[in-house]
Amino acid sequence: MAKKKKTKATGKIKVFALGGLDEIGKNLYVIEYENDIIIVDCGLGFPDEDMPGVDLVIPDITYLEKNADRVRGIFITHGHEDHIGALPYVLRTLHVPVYATRLTIGIIESKLSEHKFDYKPELNCVAAGDVIKASDDISVEFIRVNHSIADACALAIKTPLGYIIHSGDFKFDLSPIDGEVMDVKRLAEIGAEGVLLLMCDSTNAERPGYTPSERTVGNSFDQIFASHATNRIIIATFSSNVHRVQQIIDNSVRYGRKVAITGRSMLTVVGAATRLGYMDFPDGAIIDINDIKKYPDNRVTVITTGSQGEPMSALYRMAFGDHSNVTIGKNDIVIISANAIPGNEKLVGKIVNELYRCGAEVYNDTSSPIHVSGHACQEDLKFMHALTKPKYFMPIHGERRHLMEHRKLAMFMGERSENIFVPELGRVLEIDESGARFSGSVPSGRLLVDGTGVGDVGSVVLRDRILLSQDGLIVVSAAIDTLARDIVSTPEIYTRGFIYVKESEELMEEMRAVARDALERGILDYKRDISEIKNDVRDALSKFVSRRVKRRPIILPIIIEV
Amino acid sequence: MAKKKKTKATGKIKVFALGGLDEIGKNLYVIEYENDIIIVDCGLGFPDEDMPGVDLVIPDITYLEKNADRVRGIFITHGHEDHIGALPYVLRTLHVPVYATRLTIGIIESKLSEHKFDYKPELNCVAAGDVIKASDDISVEFIRVNHSIADACALAIKTPLGYIIHSGDFKFDLSPIDGEVMDVKRLAEIGAEGVLLLMCDSTNAERPGYTPSERTVGNSFDQIFASHATNRIIIATFSSNVHRVQQIIDNSVRYGRKVAITGRSMLTVVGAATRLGYMDFPDGAIIDINDIKKYPDNRVTVITTGSQGEPMSALYRMAFGDHSNVTIGKNDIVIISANAIPGNEKLVGKIVNELYRCGAEVYNDTSSPIHVSGHACQEDLKFMHALTKPKYFMPIHGERRHLMEHRKLAMFMGERSENIFVPELGRVLEIDESGARFSGSVPSGRLLVDGTGVGDVGSVVLRDRILLSQDGLIVVSAAIDTLARDIVSTPEIYTRGFIYVKESEELMEEMRAVARDALERGILDYKRDISEIKNDVRDALSKFVSRRVKRRPIILPIIIEV
Repeated sequence: MAKKKKTKATGKIKVFALGGLDEIGKNLYVIEYENDIIIVDCGLGFPDEDMPGVDLVIPDITYLEKNADRVRGIFITHGHEDHIGALPYVLRTLHVPVYATRLTIGIIESKLSEHKFDYKPELNCVAAGDVIKASDDISVEFIRVNHSIADACALAIKTPLGYIIHSGDFKFDLSPIDGEVMDVKRLAEIGAEGVLLLMCDSTNAERPGYTPSERTVGNSFDQIFASHATNRIIIATFSSNVHRVQQIIDNSVRYGRKVAITGRSMLTVVGAATRLGYMDFPDGAIIDINDIKKYPDNRVTVITTGSQGEPMSALYRMAFGDHSNVTIGKNDIVIISANAIPGNEKLVGKIVNELYRCGAEVYNDTSSPIHVSGHACQEDLKFMHALTKPKYFMPIHGERRHLMEHRKLAMFMGERSENIFVPELGRVLEIDESGARFSGSVPSGRLLVDGTGVGDVGSVVLRDRILLSQDGLIVVSAAIDTLARDIVSTPEIYTRGFIYVKESEELMEEMRAVARDALERGILDYKRDISEIKNDVRDALSKFVSRRVKRRPIILPIIIEV
Repeated sequence: MAKKKKTKATGKIKVFALGGLDEIGKNLYVIEYENDIIIVDCGLGFPDEDMPGVDLVIPDITYLEKNADRVRGIFITHGHEDHIGALPYVLRTLHVPVYATRLTIGIIESKLSEHKFDYKPELNCVAAGDVIKASDDISVEFIRVNHSIADACALAIKTPLGYIIHSGDFKFDLSPIDGEVMDVKRLAEIGAEGVLLLMCDSTNAERPGYTPSERTVGNSFDQIFASHATNRIIIATFSSNVHRVQQIIDNSVRYGRKVAITGRSMLTVVGAATRLGYMDFPDGAIIDINDIKKYPDNRVTVITTGSQGEPMSALYRMAFGDHSNVTIGKNDIVIISANAIPGNEKLVGKIVNELYRCGAEVYNDTSSPIHVSGHACQEDLKFMHALTKPKYFMPIHGERRHLMEHRKLAMFMGERSENIFVPELGRVLEIDESGARFSGSVPSGRLLVDGTGVGDVGSVVLRDRILLSQDGLIVVSAAIDTLARDIVSTPEIYTRGFIYVKESEELMEEMRAVARDALERGILDYKRDISEIKNDVRDALSKFVSRRVKRRPIILPIIIEV
């Protein structure tokens, strides 16, 4: 129950997401109270199959840029890409302080160092338990949670109308590797005091049961290490999962194996985590990957990137015989300690097949308990709802299916349907003393990052890329004398991605003839201008190709007037 | 134990696959004894993500075409696309008889009717239990198995050296919908007589346990129908799964619902299966999809295609508000009675999210037992090995990971590693009285079908399509007077899929300048010919674009000499 206040708060809270709804990725949530705005997380998304060539996706922050003077800070829950990855772009225009725990700040620093800024972004290191006063009206408390990266927090955002709990990404782990169990006590205290709004991770809302402890993976490793005393062991996992890597090192030390690390991001993260004190191992436990040949197979563990099947990752290069230090053979046990993120199943499968072909034995998530999720399953979610007993609830961090399942779960916990708000991106939830309701929208969307460009690849460019990838392109070039109405250089045909030209000379000849006919008819008609003639040539070729080989390449007529 | 023969067979058996190994798809297996060749199955594959624009993939049958006079027939195990889909292409050049059971022949006939032939292919209808004499030395016996399509068979191929069992795609179903339990008795008899070689389905070799009966899905439907007495129910499944469709109709009849069918392939298959007697329902049970509005929601079941998330399938159109008869709303229960085939997860997820957005409740495979596999899991595979007790074993129908797991399973069953052969496509297993061994290879590979073209899209075209989809294309056109060494028409830049041009005028201007410079330098150098000048322009632009925007579009210089 909320404490009675002397004066009634008359302000309004506005809550909305610019990323993280109807998607797993580019998390960015905005909380406003009157004149103050705070931002929770600032992540990137990965491109879908309908965005070929795009490197990454970031939220549209037009609204925040327009209200930049009201933004008091960006509060980061943890150091995963989908929560920090847009910072290098957002901080260019939004010069506001960033608050995060120590490991998270370390990761952000190394990320920002790859980008240029015309000022020095303000990064503030906090610890779980700290309360940051964002403005006169808003303070933000960092609360320890467990997740698949160390130093993750939920946020308790105190406003004049009450607490907003933002869960971050979390799970309950009763036996975490670093001993830092989620701060259930503090969540329960705030729950007792009264929670106005719970915004909670929905990633695993479809999954029944409890999420197993990270430590169970270590036990599986132990069994595999014990039963393969003569083999070399190679383990791929997410580089950011410091605790997973720690467990691999612990097992290796116990079984008398040296650990070699390969893959750029794995080297970076292990370096940073060790430097910041998040990892711990005896001197000499880690060896250089170049030295593994000095040890017998059964004295070596290799930790590598590539658990998502990423082309050119270290594991990919090993599988395809292209890694300079590791050649896979019959004495290798390869453990892929990760789940395939939806969309990556075929890439992972490709590597698994190739590893088998090299003679290795492969353990992956489908066959052994060598991975656990970092997100709360249904029973853990129920626990969160039971602890916080929110007045209003907004499921976040999930596709529509996850958000709707989470809604169902909240109703199972006794929350009333009219107090549950499942928004879309940009949709504003407004809360005041008289209640909560959706009220309008702010601009939202996705900006595509391609090379150094942000936002210069839009729907037309993507549509063309997809069309080009389906049937390729035909360029037809000619030169005409517009005044004399004469063809100076007869149509020539160039193709890319269309057809194997050497075996299709007849078709090429026919296309040239079709283009020449259309061009000739066009220039003989004095009323037709050059752009009409170009359209004539395009249409004639398009019809011919569609009829002749049932394909629809992009056709680009280039007619030079001389 | 094999019966003693009076005279020792001196011939050689050769067994190899032209499709179906290291892939799920395009199954085509070849068995030779001396001068006779028989083919088992003739399927197509679906293109991978590295084959954009390709419609389908068929096996390279160069070897069979060269030996056409020795081919005695094509024996089809069942009517799935990956076992029959290449027939329209293969039968063009191989004029040989086809043998299959009744439903399978029905499906093949409707498939062939969509293609033109300059002769009438010979299709022979057989029944389970029939033995076809393919030649003096080879006979082929059709043996009933269970699978996710009716009328599926394994084959027992009798040769002078003994029996070869080809499992086809199978599972053990003790309670199949049509009552036709797999012919365990006959397999056991042949097993007792002696099996020389077992070629066995490996699809589910990684999955522990038994594959549940098709009937369990009916029970799940029953529960969902019972608990949603006021809702409309929409069920998507594979159109070829006649028994699944039968169970949906049975439940609908029991709960007083009319059944409407939508989706082209669903209408075709239900039509054919009903005509051939493979489906059975009371008059009036099925209504036209145009008439569903005449019935209240709780009196209607809709059966639809689209269980793989296929764009433009009926379910896809429903989800995106584009189906002429079905608009999804809050009173709809949508059941996706299928697993997502690897690679289709995101497509299916997209539809599920959209259905939720429309207000429907969605059941899919991850949440309820509303789908069972048609393939044998590990315990069923062990049963097959125990029944047939093969002398030699070749795992088929699977990716490398499945084949290798199946090998492990065979060794668990007591088969010896030197008697297990895990081949690649085209690799020939040779068996004679003295033993079995790999011996050489025949040509194998994949032919890509795109539009009306077979094999005219190869690796160069695919590479270009992938490059085009990543960063698009820049065409730079100009006209020069080669003799006068003069630029007649200054370079113009056209792009497709590269960048949003309207917002990039500055970049376009810079590119024109770069191209003009390179062109000018080129034509001033009298030693350089036109192709060298083109290369100059391409290289200059490529370097500039890579440096300026970090992208690598295909650059096509078109320089017309006038």
